[in-house]
Amino acid sequence: MSKIACVMTDMFEDSEYTSPAKEFESGGHEVMVIGPEKGKEVTGKNEDAKVTVDLAIEDAKPEDYDALFIPGGFSPDILRADDRFVHFAKHFMDENKPVFAICHGPQLLITADVLKDRYVTGFKSIQMDLKHAGANFKDEEVVVCHNLVTSRTPDDLPAFNRESLKQLS
Amino acid sequence: MSKIACVMTDMFEDSEYTSPAKEFESGGHEVMVIGPEKGKEVTGKNEDAKVTVDLAIEDAKPEDYDALFIPGGFSPDILRADDRFVHFAKHFMDENKPVFAICHGPQLLITADVLKDRYVTGFKSIQMDLKHAGANFKDEEVVVCHNLVTSRTPDDLPAFNRESLKQLS
Repeated sequence: MSKIACVMTDMFEDSEYTSPAKEFESGGHEVMVIGPEKGKEVTGKNEDAKVTVDLAIEDAKPEDYDALFIPGGFSPDILRADDRFVHFAKHFMDENKPVFAICHGPQLLITADVLKDRYVTGFKSIQMDLKHAGANFKDEEVVVCHNLVTSRTPDDLPAFNRESLKQLS
Repeated sequence: MSKIACVMTDMFEDSEYTSPAKEFESGGHEVMVIGPEKGKEVTGKNEDAKVTVDLAIEDAKPEDYDALFIPGGFSPDILRADDRFVHFAKHFMDENKPVFAICHGPQLLITADVLKDRYVTGFKSIQMDLKHAGANFKDEEVVVCHNLVTSRTPDDLPAFNRESLKQLS
């Protein structure tokens, strides 16, 4: 069973956390929410989901986790302005550990500069940024490129969850 | 006196609209808010400012305006997913008309693919995207590059307003 680091703060896309987290936990995996401050409650952009942060980024060691999960919404834009989250995310790509990023989630990977020549998808607004970052953008419900699983929107969650779970098995 | 098109939707950074709009209007210029739907009230991300959209993007002609103003916040991310706003913005850069973009505002110009070799600044989270887009990023309160004026955050508003007004005189 895997220990998954979920990096997240306010304004995450509600279902892009709740749906994969439920599936991961149903599969016997552990999801730890890592945010700016331990014990803080972060709220999704639709205010449907409120989640308590398990661990502050300053206390989190990427070596302790088997996989990285980045929900979308506006949360990734906030995280990528904080170098600690950027360095944390980079570890998983450098070590070829499974990385699951949906919607705006790949923004954090752009700032970590780890997408060159990788096949990816993402929300329409970040398409140009992904291409400029050297990635090969594919407009598909899910794109699997070695350890990296990406999807576009909440509509893609069934495919995103399925392929992410495969990486953990 | 100039006619300024302000492209904006919900989740704009409140003061990044209200402060320049006030300065532009005090200088005798006209600011028209162009959004997804005419008459709709759009709300800033801090819920301090509510602004009624003057004109729907589908009815707006860029030729009718002397300058473009793009407030920041999460509004530019939403606008750049709508090709009509991208094409609208591109006109001003192609025609060398004044363009004022603050914080996340330059995201719309990245998608319009008009920043190659331009000197720019912007909010920290979009630095990497600006560099990847071929722009020369400068971490300064305001960067003026021919017709293009950019700034980073609400703290830069005095410099942003000053340099934007200069372009209109």
